[in-house]
Amino acid sequence: MTRNSQTVPRSQRRARTAERILAAARALFAESGYDRTTIRAVATRAEVDPALVMQHFGSKDELFRRAITVSSQEADEGGQEKLVELLLGILGVKMGEVSGTSLALLRSMLTHPEAAEQVKAANTRQLNQISGAIEAEDAELRAALTVSTLLGVTIGRHLLELDVLREADTERIAELMKPCLEALTGRPAQS
Amino acid sequence: MTRNSQTVPRSQRRARTAERILAAARALFAESGYDRTTIRAVATRAEVDPALVMQHFGSKDELFRRAITVSSQEADEGGQEKLVELLLGILGVKMGEVSGTSLALLRSMLTHPEAAEQVKAANTRQLNQISGAIEAEDAELRAALTVSTLLGVTIGRHLLELDVLREADTERIAELMKPCLEALTGRPAQS
Repeated sequence: MTRNSQTVPRSQRRARTAERILAAARALFAESGYDRTTIRAVATRAEVDPALVMQHFGSKDELFRRAITVSSQEADEGGQEKLVELLLGILGVKMGEVSGTSLALLRSMLTHPEAAEQVKAANTRQLNQISGAIEAEDAELRAALTVSTLLGVTIGRHLLELDVLREADTERIAELMKPCLEALTGRPAQS
Repeated sequence: MTRNSQTVPRSQRRARTAERILAAARALFAESGYDRTTIRAVATRAEVDPALVMQHFGSKDELFRRAITVSSQEADEGGQEKLVELLLGILGVKMGEVSGTSLALLRSMLTHPEAAEQVKAANTRQLNQISGAIEAEDAELRAALTVSTLLGVTIGRHLLELDVLREADTERIAELMKPCLEALTGRPAQS
């Protein structure tokens, strides 16, 4: 037996802490929106020191950016059920009050070719990570449809401002979207 | 017995012809794109005179606009299964090669408040028609999520130009989206 079989390696502990912070950040961004979520509150929820949040993510902006993407670490673990939970967490953040900057970025990505290129590159990484976690055939296409679907709901709520979607409870939206995301990420047919 | 119980009333015949033309238009727009679809080809597929297409819709632009929306007539008939088929037909049209004008409109709706207002008004009519055809609870919210989802996939293909989505076969996209749309429009849980 090596020493490491007794204790979790440092790199793994670090990764787990980062995941715990991200999960706390997703919950808080979803509940309170970007502006009212503080690094301190995220640290409290994740039961870590605020300094550790900064050490892992550097800034609130970066923490937010990471909260709305799937990391390789997360995509690698836990199979399809975990992936759907993760996507619903991300949807929750996107349904919260987002900052003016985020909306401006969303708008510009749809109108400025250079911004679109950047977003496309970021999306491609994101798509690879999600498709890696999908076991069904057409994993890449399913990942692209999943990301597009989440984008559409975000646009419906924040850019088109469809009344019923703006007024809806975030948790109800997640409930209704869940079977849709399960189908897209390849839940085996129920029998 | 009245005379009308023997023959279909003129207004109903007219509505059926319009639906047949719309179905033909959806199929052709999806197969060939906006530019290469002619009024004449639509008329041939619908087995009517081209003049009748113009009489019903006035222009190719208007025919296209109607092809990507659900009419009250269509929403009223046939229940949820028919609604999903209809939505998949509309998705097919949206996946086809759309005109530069349509893309410009899509872009501007996301960036110009006035254009957004117009689109919001049009979407609200559309949402009412779709939600009228949904029997599950939260019909309005489900309709809004359905429309947003279709919008997201359209944006992914035409504005973000995600490679895998651009290259994917339209029919495969429809197949993958079908269970998702069924879930959103409230298919009863399978047992």
